[in-house]
Amino acid sequence: MDASLSSVSAPARLAADGEAVSHEELALATRNHGLPLEALRYDVTPPGLHYVLVHYDIPAVDPDAWRLGVDGLVRDALSLDLASVRAFPSMTARVTMECAGNGRARLEPRPVSQPWLVEAVGTAEWTGVPLSALLAEAGVAAGASDVVFTGADHGVERGVEQDYQRGLPLAVATGDDPPAFVAYEMNGQPLPPQHGCPLRLVVPGRYGMAHVKWLREITLLDRPFTGFQQSVAYRYRQTADEPGEPVDRINPRALLAPPGFPDFMSRARVVDAGPVILTGRAWSGFAPVTRVEVSDDDGRSWTDAEVDPPDGRRWAWQAWRATWEATPGDHMLTARAHDAEGHVQPIAQSWNRGGFGNNGAQQVPVHCR
Amino acid sequence: MDASLSSVSAPARLAADGEAVSHEELALATRNHGLPLEALRYDVTPPGLHYVLVHYDIPAVDPDAWRLGVDGLVRDALSLDLASVRAFPSMTARVTMECAGNGRARLEPRPVSQPWLVEAVGTAEWTGVPLSALLAEAGVAAGASDVVFTGADHGVERGVEQDYQRGLPLAVATGDDPPAFVAYEMNGQPLPPQHGCPLRLVVPGRYGMAHVKWLREITLLDRPFTGFQQSVAYRYRQTADEPGEPVDRINPRALLAPPGFPDFMSRARVVDAGPVILTGRAWSGFAPVTRVEVSDDDGRSWTDAEVDPPDGRRWAWQAWRATWEATPGDHMLTARAHDAEGHVQPIAQSWNRGGFGNNGAQQVPVHCR
Repeated sequence: MDASLSSVSAPARLAADGEAVSHEELALATRNHGLPLEALRYDVTPPGLHYVLVHYDIPAVDPDAWRLGVDGLVRDALSLDLASVRAFPSMTARVTMECAGNGRARLEPRPVSQPWLVEAVGTAEWTGVPLSALLAEAGVAAGASDVVFTGADHGVERGVEQDYQRGLPLAVATGDDPPAFVAYEMNGQPLPPQHGCPLRLVVPGRYGMAHVKWLREITLLDRPFTGFQQSVAYRYRQTADEPGEPVDRINPRALLAPPGFPDFMSRARVVDAGPVILTGRAWSGFAPVTRVEVSDDDGRSWTDAEVDPPDGRRWAWQAWRATWEATPGDHMLTARAHDAEGHVQPIAQSWNRGGFGNNGAQQVPVHCR
Repeated sequence: MDASLSSVSAPARLAADGEAVSHEELALATRNHGLPLEALRYDVTPPGLHYVLVHYDIPAVDPDAWRLGVDGLVRDALSLDLASVRAFPSMTARVTMECAGNGRARLEPRPVSQPWLVEAVGTAEWTGVPLSALLAEAGVAAGASDVVFTGADHGVERGVEQDYQRGLPLAVATGDDPPAFVAYEMNGQPLPPQHGCPLRLVVPGRYGMAHVKWLREITLLDRPFTGFQQSVAYRYRQTADEPGEPVDRINPRALLAPPGFPDFMSRARVVDAGPVILTGRAWSGFAPVTRVEVSDDDGRSWTDAEVDPPDGRRWAWQAWRATWEATPGDHMLTARAHDAEGHVQPIAQSWNRGGFGNNGAQQVPVHCR
């Protein structure tokens, strides 16, 4: 905590009852962006539609001069240029990422931060090198138990100046459930600047904060990493002074691609009476989605949708569809997901001080004529 | 005006004194997005960083089945597939686009719509076919005076169901100042879905509403087009009942790439004492930018920056730079542009009911240590 930065960097806080969304929150909402919900139609999200959350600035990078360090408790510290990273055997995985703060702006009281409503998600085909291969090349030394990933993005947050850093237990970093990897391509192209060009970590099934962008260093430690983003931010807490539980896997969620056409301002939908095909996606960071239900009365009654199986793509969203018999009047559509481990998406909001992991059901107002 | 749509589509309005930014405004802010200001560093904005404003939904399109119609007062109506459009001699132009609503959220009272602060801008290399070539192929009939452009995006706005449409006088559509054209590539690649795939209109120097996306029809009329987006929306008005003046050319603006590093939440900047190179971009839809001034005391005193000439790229932003001697304490940086026609960017906001054309100077709070 650097007191000299207090004029620019305030402590975390909750909005007061009725307090307006501030220009600071709006500045985050207009520079970061979510998935326009109609883009749920694409199996793989095109660049520019996949959600983006950048903590500090997108760094100015020179890929030709980039080095990825692997150091700390290793036999041989590495400093790899991009050609050396690409020389390892590659892997490609389709992965759904979601921001841990998705749904935050719907909470009351509202945690003051990036004000997502429901749209902070996207699915891409990431190509890169398994972490296990990089760590095997460096040689993990005895006593190593944790791995820290450091990005090139530098800033201050609640008075703490930092490069963005997150840690993983060694067993997760080198395991294959999920297969964590260092990606250099998104959808078959070099990473765009806002998605971590030239390198980012991908940890399937985990909320977005784990997928360190602009990755420049991987460091082996003999103890759990306790940096700001691990032990201060990204904790499930009810009060400011408790240590809280770590934010980790993505909670189950189903999203509807809103049917019909929208009003510009309200985003409410207009459909004609008769059968309407409802489609969407569902995912869970714990286990495959086994069931999706839809409701046209804001969750009072439910109907099962047809859900595609994961089909070998364990870490990507699954498509679903249902036919809705639309009758004239105003309706509130919603959907919820169940996964194979028995997690059921709640209808209500799940409140915590950071506004994390809120998977309360989406609400889509529809006018049928 | 369709009264049956009143439950989803409300009239335009101003926020009440102190009224919070609504979930509706937030939903627009999280699905559309601005340019993260550090991306001012790129001469040409990478996809995903260029601002996007979509009135309704991004349409689902099949480029192989796409047809561009040219009809109305023409000798031979055309229905062109994409290969036929691409068979015309092509042109490429670097063009800066800005949303007419940029700066709206800083106005008091606040017009309730997409709540941009200052970031709704971007510059791309667009490649396509001059409108004059398409219209010559169809043959403009005697009496034609106006051209209407229709997109495939369908929705309702203030009770009016519509496909997005905008018009241009025939002289503008076929002139070469600016050279209006139908683009099929952005930065050398097919248009992304959110930028109008497969075809969009580009009208350099005009605010974004003129650049009709998902362009499917060009119609010649013998009278000025008076559709919703021309005569109801996108007018400079002080009161709801006056006809107002049309929104057209982009007002001059300079933007600073914020120096140093940011606080996550406030986006305020931290720099070290000593010389700091300030850089940014400036543009005007009227004429080249001839002068940019910077201030470190919120506009009380000004220093001239060095401005790059347009260098043959008349419709693109111009880079500028200045050296600032940072001294410890808190400062408010700002910048303003002058163009060759004598337009000077104001420091204060320019208020109108729609929140259009507000080019009040950017404010960048900086803490120097």
